[in-house]
Amino acid sequence: MNNKKYKNLIIKTKIAFYSKIKGFFIFRPYGLKIWENIKYILNKMLIKTKHKNYYFPLLIPKSLFNIEYNNIKNFYKECAIVTHTRFLIKKKKLVIDQKSKLNEELIIRPTSEVIIWDTCKEWIQSYKDLPLLINQWVNVVRLEMKNKMFLRNSEFLWQEGHTAHKNKKEAINEIKKIKKIYINLIKKKLSIPFIYGKKTNTEKFSGAKFTYSFETLTNNGKCIQLATIHFLAKNFSKAFKVMYTNKENKKEYVWNTSWGISTRLIGAMIMIHSDNKGLIIPPKISPIHIIIIPIIKKKYYYKYIKKINKIVKKLKKKLKKNKIKIKYDNNLNITPGNKYFKYEKMGIPIRIVIGKKEIKNNFIEIYRRDKDKKYILKLNNKINIKIINILNKIQKNIYKKAKKKMIKNTFIINDYKIFKKKIINNGGFILSYWDNKKSTELKIKNETKATIRCIINKKKNGKCIYTGKKTNTKVVFGKSY
Amino acid sequence: MNNKKYKNLIIKTKIAFYSKIKGFFIFRPYGLKIWENIKYILNKMLIKTKHKNYYFPLLIPKSLFNIEYNNIKNFYKECAIVTHTRFLIKKKKLVIDQKSKLNEELIIRPTSEVIIWDTCKEWIQSYKDLPLLINQWVNVVRLEMKNKMFLRNSEFLWQEGHTAHKNKKEAINEIKKIKKIYINLIKKKLSIPFIYGKKTNTEKFSGAKFTYSFETLTNNGKCIQLATIHFLAKNFSKAFKVMYTNKENKKEYVWNTSWGISTRLIGAMIMIHSDNKGLIIPPKISPIHIIIIPIIKKKYYYKYIKKINKIVKKLKKKLKKNKIKIKYDNNLNITPGNKYFKYEKMGIPIRIVIGKKEIKNNFIEIYRRDKDKKYILKLNNKINIKIINILNKIQKNIYKKAKKKMIKNTFIINDYKIFKKKIINNGGFILSYWDNKKSTELKIKNETKATIRCIINKKKNGKCIYTGKKTNTKVVFGKSY
Repeated sequence: MNNKKYKNLIIKTKIAFYSKIKGFFIFRPYGLKIWENIKYILNKMLIKTKHKNYYFPLLIPKSLFNIEYNNIKNFYKECAIVTHTRFLIKKKKLVIDQKSKLNEELIIRPTSEVIIWDTCKEWIQSYKDLPLLINQWVNVVRLEMKNKMFLRNSEFLWQEGHTAHKNKKEAINEIKKIKKIYINLIKKKLSIPFIYGKKTNTEKFSGAKFTYSFETLTNNGKCIQLATIHFLAKNFSKAFKVMYTNKENKKEYVWNTSWGISTRLIGAMIMIHSDNKGLIIPPKISPIHIIIIPIIKKKYYYKYIKKINKIVKKLKKKLKKNKIKIKYDNNLNITPGNKYFKYEKMGIPIRIVIGKKEIKNNFIEIYRRDKDKKYILKLNNKINIKIINILNKIQKNIYKKAKKKMIKNTFIINDYKIFKKKIINNGGFILSYWDNKKSTELKIKNETKATIRCIINKKKNGKCIYTGKKTNTKVVFGKSY
Repeated sequence: MNNKKYKNLIIKTKIAFYSKIKGFFIFRPYGLKIWENIKYILNKMLIKTKHKNYYFPLLIPKSLFNIEYNNIKNFYKECAIVTHTRFLIKKKKLVIDQKSKLNEELIIRPTSEVIIWDTCKEWIQSYKDLPLLINQWVNVVRLEMKNKMFLRNSEFLWQEGHTAHKNKKEAINEIKKIKKIYINLIKKKLSIPFIYGKKTNTEKFSGAKFTYSFETLTNNGKCIQLATIHFLAKNFSKAFKVMYTNKENKKEYVWNTSWGISTRLIGAMIMIHSDNKGLIIPPKISPIHIIIIPIIKKKYYYKYIKKINKIVKKLKKKLKKNKIKIKYDNNLNITPGNKYFKYEKMGIPIRIVIGKKEIKNNFIEIYRRDKDKKYILKLNNKINIKIINILNKIQKNIYKKAKKKMIKNTFIINDYKIFKKKIINNGGFILSYWDNKKSTELKIKNETKATIRCIINKKKNGKCIYTGKKTNTKVVFGKSY
């Protein structure tokens, strides 16, 4: 999907809207509801694993970023910096009151590690206070130069997890646990295929020891980072003196992790699942599962409308237990054709049409958005089970289709000339070997704009795509959004 | 409750915590969950009345506030103003990059009228697009000089509703609708008594034509504004040119309202319901409804623990359907006495104790936090109904107690000398007549620090408490937090 088509689709389906400030967007109800559904699902999983929700301040004093110098490297060129607190009113216009200059600048959180560990050290005394499993659902600001709705917003909504553990093993276990949870969310709920692996030192979160990431691919061969998990080791605990007393009564630094997913997932979902007709929303996160449209000629209206209403009522009742959300659009002023067009564009998974023919034969017409196909379904007691079955099939089919496309655009390449050609003409995921040298990584980036998305494995031996040196590091290259 | 006790209670019960920046606080899981419960309840009501959730940007360009000049009067001295976007790193420290100065300052939203109506005018064409019923759940920043956890946070979480209507009548109806919803929330869910009325011109939201407010009283005789509803008339639609085409094909300005409640409600709840033992959380918003504590002597432990676990399991299962949240604290390392102390302080509505005696006699001991009293309850099939009954009684009793206190501290006074004495020595709500003059209002404020909380009615005639002039305006005076 090209950029223009992507933007148009988002505006037309009322997922989001422009604001006057570059990079800031308005989430309209349909888009926000998708985010709320993602939030609800992930939050439930995180509560099960004993993570707790907190809310830490939006503004962070500059001095905290000075303490953990590495941490800010990713963000210091894209901060929203608060410097003053008062206006004067001059000729009915606001003018900054220079006397209100802050002694220390405040930064709108680009991420919250520093404020969280600077605070939480006061809560951690003994090993009994660990693990500390913090999560928060908040807005963050990173004033990136290039913007793209959902994929690169200057302000976005996200979930940021921050945990403290007694030792390395427990921190590593936490990372495995979060990996599983994110796989569940991304694969099973958003139907998005991905590659998972470790970032290179160049590409990792600068405050982390290691960063793991989930990477996916769009139709136009570009990569999207879906989620990241950071193993922070003792980087932050040493900087902020977050210590606990162990069983032997000795002071030790805690081990930290942090991890997050954001509203970017909505952008990825749109990029990956949409087709020529518009959005395709995976049922598990769709604000509406079924749109029901009555079809009656005007002259038969009074004869059939009551019967249709009755069927709709029954269906709604039957499916309410299964939390299936149904919208019944019986607006007479809009033609069925226009309704079809609208809801197909919105990506509602199932459309049900009921008219004279359907009533007479006691069936309904079902349209599957993902396959763009119609089916006939007998109206009987098992209708709810059948519909739920179809929704599950849609969920899986969307994933299968996306995975197929991803595989089709994934290439194993050993020759740098072919690599270059492929990256420039086609894009996609390119699996190659790399000699673990930063210089090689940067040369490839300079020549092709491709970066290493993540390291896949270190099992077999091969030759570096650029230098030809022997190496066991297999990586995925790609161009990022 | 004095300030120190209030703060201590919040810190000790882990409702919230200090941050390093004045006026910014950390919501810990117990406090945040109370807010999430309030949000869940109110959101459900607002969805029923067809309000939709949006998310508008955190940052607002200064020029938008210049357009509706009146609107900013309330906030221009307490704005978080973003002026720069980049740092330089000098000797491993962050220094503002002066080259990154913004052409136009951005303000962290103190409220969102201007950005919402500046955007939404593009969505409103015809009368068919109205009413537009917008709500958002967001963080806002107002850097107030005086801070008090929850009651005056520099950053707080809130819900802000913004609506557009065809005519005055519909806007007034919206206000009535929201009034009902807020009464339901404040009275029935938070068990907080209140006085409702119109603000004076001095006290209203400066962007509004009228402001209505819910006011309550704390034990120490001070007033808290719980919620406000603003009738904006055409103030914003004229400023931002929000127009629609009516049925006669003529352009007209829309009529607007806005309204909000915030995390201040948590502060009010703490102030109003707490007693010497600690918090008392109304069941409808309590994160935990029942704390179960087993009591067994060590030597009988293995004999009874299984039986107790079984009873707890049954109770949990029975009450799950009714969404009653139970916590079972079977930690052997803490004495029952310490547990009592902890959960009473946290304000958990019901404590259930099960020990040898209870098992033998097939009953449980129930403790009601609101009455500080114990009861015996037979363990039979109706136990869940009985417990739900008790929770409902607690909910009502908390309200009754609070209302009694409010009435006890509400005085009808006609003599300014007595008025002054009362305000200074005692505080409370003072019902008096006022001559509708701003000068009178300000003189009283200067002399007593009391402001008019709201206008109660304009039915009977009386004499102004200050000037003695004849007037029909009865108001409530009080000192605010």
